[in-house]
Amino acid sequence: MNAEIISVGTELVLGQVTNTNAPLLAQKLATLDIEAPYQVTVMDDAQQIGAAIKTAQQRAELIFVCGGLGPTTDDVTITSTATALGVPLATDEQHWAWIKETFKQRQIEMPTENIQQARYLGGGVALANPVGLALGSWYDHAGQVVVVLPGPPAEFKAMVNQSLMPRLQARYGQGRQIVSRTLNFLGRPESQLMDEIEEATKQFSSMTVTSYVQPSQIQVRINVYDLPQPAATKLLDQVTAAILAVERPFYFGTGDQCSLAQVVVEQLTKQQQTITGAESLTGGLFQSTLCSVPGASNVFAGGFVTYAARAKEQLIGVDQSIIDQYGVVSSQTAAQMAEKSREKLDADFGVSFTGVAGPDALEGQPAGTVWLGLAQRNQPVQTKELHLAAYIGRQAIRNLSVQYGLQMVYQALQR
Amino acid sequence: MNAEIISVGTELVLGQVTNTNAPLLAQKLATLDIEAPYQVTVMDDAQQIGAAIKTAQQRAELIFVCGGLGPTTDDVTITSTATALGVPLATDEQHWAWIKETFKQRQIEMPTENIQQARYLGGGVALANPVGLALGSWYDHAGQVVVVLPGPPAEFKAMVNQSLMPRLQARYGQGRQIVSRTLNFLGRPESQLMDEIEEATKQFSSMTVTSYVQPSQIQVRINVYDLPQPAATKLLDQVTAAILAVERPFYFGTGDQCSLAQVVVEQLTKQQQTITGAESLTGGLFQSTLCSVPGASNVFAGGFVTYAARAKEQLIGVDQSIIDQYGVVSSQTAAQMAEKSREKLDADFGVSFTGVAGPDALEGQPAGTVWLGLAQRNQPVQTKELHLAAYIGRQAIRNLSVQYGLQMVYQALQR
Repeated sequence: MNAEIISVGTELVLGQVTNTNAPLLAQKLATLDIEAPYQVTVMDDAQQIGAAIKTAQQRAELIFVCGGLGPTTDDVTITSTATALGVPLATDEQHWAWIKETFKQRQIEMPTENIQQARYLGGGVALANPVGLALGSWYDHAGQVVVVLPGPPAEFKAMVNQSLMPRLQARYGQGRQIVSRTLNFLGRPESQLMDEIEEATKQFSSMTVTSYVQPSQIQVRINVYDLPQPAATKLLDQVTAAILAVERPFYFGTGDQCSLAQVVVEQLTKQQQTITGAESLTGGLFQSTLCSVPGASNVFAGGFVTYAARAKEQLIGVDQSIIDQYGVVSSQTAAQMAEKSREKLDADFGVSFTGVAGPDALEGQPAGTVWLGLAQRNQPVQTKELHLAAYIGRQAIRNLSVQYGLQMVYQALQR
Repeated sequence: MNAEIISVGTELVLGQVTNTNAPLLAQKLATLDIEAPYQVTVMDDAQQIGAAIKTAQQRAELIFVCGGLGPTTDDVTITSTATALGVPLATDEQHWAWIKETFKQRQIEMPTENIQQARYLGGGVALANPVGLALGSWYDHAGQVVVVLPGPPAEFKAMVNQSLMPRLQARYGQGRQIVSRTLNFLGRPESQLMDEIEEATKQFSSMTVTSYVQPSQIQVRINVYDLPQPAATKLLDQVTAAILAVERPFYFGTGDQCSLAQVVVEQLTKQQQTITGAESLTGGLFQSTLCSVPGASNVFAGGFVTYAARAKEQLIGVDQSIIDQYGVVSSQTAAQMAEKSREKLDADFGVSFTGVAGPDALEGQPAGTVWLGLAQRNQPVQTKELHLAAYIGRQAIRNLSVQYGLQMVYQALQR
């Protein structure tokens, strides 16, 4: 069956903002065997929105109108859609009360236009927005469904996942049966990883293995096609085992949303171990990444950002003679940073980062040269040198350094 | 004129990855008055790619084939495209040498398949990739242009901006004349900001003002239509002045890529001032954000992450009695964190963050309650309380806290 996605936003038409919502939705629809061959973008303009809806009504059974649900006067989507469909607007009084309460709690005066965000298509139902103010709408009439969704990507995504997909599933049932599992890896070039995985899984059929490189990890997805349960899960287990027999050293977890930081915080918590950090080129990103995991306070009390050499000496007591002799970008400095920060906080692990984020070289070392240190209570300090590609840029070098630091901790926790 | 965008990737078809490239490209094309009404997605499959190209040749003058240029065996885009067009593959020997050199420098063994990434459509030209290994292709024949681009979003974006757009501009000239300027704001609800801006700019014509909410700021874009220079710039200046006459307290910079961290580092450098941080709920994110700006070492030596109460006492010397009496989420604790960290580093500014990132409440305060402290040499310490909306979630609360901390510094630097 055919769906049509109408994206609303002057900033989209002018190319000032990337429309990430339409493809997200199209791909979610694909999992239900719903195709969206028609995707149009219109400005925040009542006439254009109305015309797009009327065209869509001629060729699609399922119509999405996305964006333009904000509280400002240029947000005309909900009223234009209601007009095009010839239905009145309804107000969700409970949601309206919640919006007013939210503003009150934040001690901000609320513009009266905000009532727009509690409105939905009369005769339909309101769709809850788990992370924003504007409601969505679901209007099912004469075999055609019209859905209205907000534009901000975080709201759009949460709403599609939590409010829309269950409803679509109930309405349109299942398409092709695909069962997937995602394994996460770090520390192997994608081409090599996938060559080895192809070799390791060539005896299996009814499945494919695809890879997707993310800034922090390589995600490997196993897709099993058209197999009933429990055969599908059994095949997933077999393929997983075949892959991990070869790639276990680089594996750190299963799942689309799995992050190494989360796995490390969970493992530390389980083993009742604590951690600290001393960061130079990463400037606090390692510790901040740990703290992005709810419950990090169980394993992390605090740590140091020592960007300049003098901060390394002053805050954690790295010997000036070590820095003078070996430089800040050195195994020796990384080792002292890790061990002395660990001692200061009396933590079980101390992790350090010192290196060259770029764009310029430092101490004759090119951007991408990074030393990591891992101190562990009652264990000798380990260090590790990374040679990251300078062309990936300053932020990617800092991000990857953090991930490799997490990997050192993860591997120590496996022992 | 018509363009067609063919996105290649099994992970896209299965809905496992959001296709951000196609809309990015469509919107870039819009600025040249090129429409892309046909956008299709196919799997990493030679036959599907070939068929999609042949269909596109019937209806589009400009064809994009995006993704599938990686080094693994499932990356078949470049060979499939060459086959569909009936042209041979060419190898860029200089680029191939550079790929080999890059692997050597990183001390990683290079799979031989990587030569794929130095290949382009014979009879066309190679498009440089500023941030990745795979080349693109530009093939212009019999009035039809075929462009091949890599899939990873960072590479795609850099290549579109740096290699593709200048070439498209030269080939297809200018479309509708739109001149834009982006002003960045923080600290005003979007609806209120835009209401006031609408009022302040209602006397102008030939222009629109649109807003776009980003996690760290509200971007307000002034678009001027079909005016020759210098009249277009003059109108942009007039509209900017009218907006800033009302909204200056919330403004921090001009430009699409402008970030508050960058502005603050630039201002500190210019005024030869230094800064440090003491972070609880933000866990290092403030300092890491400063360090994301090249040249941050001129103004930032280091600082503290004090996630637990005991780290606040131990690392920066916050009085235990203050914490006992007022709690960690308090103006008094924020003030001591800012001043004592500033003193320890002998910095001109000390910025502190203490509050509730959530999901759970802390000391009876709901998630989103944050105290910021700003200590400045020879000035009384300032503190500020934020009431962020709990529903935006843990990461957004941490990110926004950092931005508001930067804003306090920015405002102090204006005085």
